[in-house]
Amino acid sequence: MSSATTPIRFGIIGCAEIARKVSRAISLSPNATILAVGSRSIDKAQKFISDNSLPASTIPLAPYDAVLDHPSVDAVYVPLPTSLHVTWAVAAAKKGKHVLLEKPTALCVEELDVILEACRENRVQFMDSTMWMHHPRTEKMRELISDPTRFGEVKTVDSIFTFMADEDFLQNDIRVKPDLDALGALGDAGWYCIRSILWANSYQLPKTAVALRAPIKNNAGVIIACGAQLLWPDGRSAALNCSFLAHLTMQMTVIGTKGALHVTDFIIPYEEEKGSFTFVSDAGFTELVTGWVPVPSKHEVTADLPQEARMVREFSRLVKLIKEEGKEPEAKWPEITRKTQLVIDAVKKSVDNGFESVDIIG
Amino acid sequence: MSSATTPIRFGIIGCAEIARKVSRAISLSPNATILAVGSRSIDKAQKFISDNSLPASTIPLAPYDAVLDHPSVDAVYVPLPTSLHVTWAVAAAKKGKHVLLEKPTALCVEELDVILEACRENRVQFMDSTMWMHHPRTEKMRELISDPTRFGEVKTVDSIFTFMADEDFLQNDIRVKPDLDALGALGDAGWYCIRSILWANSYQLPKTAVALRAPIKNNAGVIIACGAQLLWPDGRSAALNCSFLAHLTMQMTVIGTKGALHVTDFIIPYEEEKGSFTFVSDAGFTELVTGWVPVPSKHEVTADLPQEARMVREFSRLVKLIKEEGKEPEAKWPEITRKTQLVIDAVKKSVDNGFESVDIIG
Repeated sequence: MSSATTPIRFGIIGCAEIARKVSRAISLSPNATILAVGSRSIDKAQKFISDNSLPASTIPLAPYDAVLDHPSVDAVYVPLPTSLHVTWAVAAAKKGKHVLLEKPTALCVEELDVILEACRENRVQFMDSTMWMHHPRTEKMRELISDPTRFGEVKTVDSIFTFMADEDFLQNDIRVKPDLDALGALGDAGWYCIRSILWANSYQLPKTAVALRAPIKNNAGVIIACGAQLLWPDGRSAALNCSFLAHLTMQMTVIGTKGALHVTDFIIPYEEEKGSFTFVSDAGFTELVTGWVPVPSKHEVTADLPQEARMVREFSRLVKLIKEEGKEPEAKWPEITRKTQLVIDAVKKSVDNGFESVDIIG
Repeated sequence: MSSATTPIRFGIIGCAEIARKVSRAISLSPNATILAVGSRSIDKAQKFISDNSLPASTIPLAPYDAVLDHPSVDAVYVPLPTSLHVTWAVAAAKKGKHVLLEKPTALCVEELDVILEACRENRVQFMDSTMWMHHPRTEKMRELISDPTRFGEVKTVDSIFTFMADEDFLQNDIRVKPDLDALGALGDAGWYCIRSILWANSYQLPKTAVALRAPIKNNAGVIIACGAQLLWPDGRSAALNCSFLAHLTMQMTVIGTKGALHVTDFIIPYEEEKGSFTFVSDAGFTELVTGWVPVPSKHEVTADLPQEARMVREFSRLVKLIKEEGKEPEAKWPEITRKTQLVIDAVKKSVDNGFESVDIIG
């Protein structure tokens, strides 16, 4: 097999539900392949391989270390509970494995920094698994909001991700357990809101975060619904609302001085094959204010591959550049991750300190 | 002319820009007619009549009192600056004229109460001129969010109304002048957000309002951008964002336990003839979380008349019931107005007191 066609070989560490989607994405990505699935037992790993119709050649391994010790594994995908990320992402980096890490990436930025430092030291690519970043719609939206004549400058962003968790989720899911995913709805749903707000602001960190009142925590103290306001020194602002207690909604509205962008399925597009959004520039009203001129336009973008497969493809492309051409890891992805985590931490702190303003220091 | 076809005869007090739209609405409404236009000078009144092609029979009057003194005027539409509302709405009521009043209805609830008391005492109908309340789309949206099986209970509402005012507006419009419309963007754009939030919550008043940080005031101290969070004792919440400093956006998202409703032109529909919104119930994802099941449905509602003409028609219908059948004024409209004003006042107070929580007491 020539270098151009040698796929990046993935090991999956942990048989989480989300690993089913990502293992399919690895199969769909032209430059990646699944080599091994690691679990706490060989039986569980084998069952995951069978249940998800992974290639018969996929190697079941146990425990997780076996994946890191496998010499043919180039990269690992880590869908473990957040509390285990620092252990396994660092271990992977130390073994020279590139790291595709589920979000939230860490319980706090100090932990994340340990992961990122290990990746830097070992010259492995780091990327968090925020799939919507890789949809071609996201590029198209970026193009429009970057246009000073059509969009102007961003003034405010409103981002909401809620879903209605069932009783089983609220009792048993790792995302409500303080020892597993202690950031709860903020780390899960809020991650996407914060990422979208940073994305819309070209990753300029806000100066402060202020949690909204009346966040909801479960009996174990884990956030299951909260909101926050983010502020920039130049007057830009953003609001986010994340919850496990309200019907599925995932919308982002980015309002500039000359235009506005609106998308209602930014995290998981309604349909896999395409994504749409609306954009309007310089809108006003008819003479008697009885209608809009112009009305927002709907833009539809077709995806050549599902967004998660595009993510795997991009990650694998970067890994190949490092592995085969001696390039340095792409710094953009860990930087974006770190900014997202910094804002998560600030919102969490404001939730916990009684809604006081918390400075965000990059 | 039989009673069934006798139209309600309107006098307009003040030749504001918005009066052009409402005078057309009066002409379009089958049970209403414009009898007189009052201004500070007869010339101005006559010019308004000519410029807007009102019927040649329309009587120009000056000053405003002349409209109230005209024995054939049944009802007045008052588009004067907010600071003049209490004077002219009370004077109208005392003369037995029914009152259709522009929003914001008053500078504070104490002033509004003076108006509402005058209307009660004189048995005249009061209604504020919030046009979108009268679009048939609003009824259809109500039907859906009232359905416990499809929508469940409301959990959160997010309402945004922003528009980008030009330099002339920011310097000269009555809505930036402390002596004219001292509530600024909160009274103008925020009025609609607060009304939509109350509407979605079946007009149950929130318990508290908390202004968001970093409101923007002009040099005269008038709010030109602000936001707030509203909270109910049972955990419901809402967020509003109103501004004169960001591109036109007018969206409302109502999220329940079992469904969600979303509309992006709720105040002024994109097109006069119809209005649309999306609604989704019990949405989840495909097995691998690669799409929504079901996707939100678009609902489109045709309007037999523009929403402002429907408003005039409903107001005139109520006036006719009082005038011709001895009915009492409909109490629903002043009640809704008062609740909106109460929330406006609480948000204003929280903006002014450093974002402290303000109790709302009906």
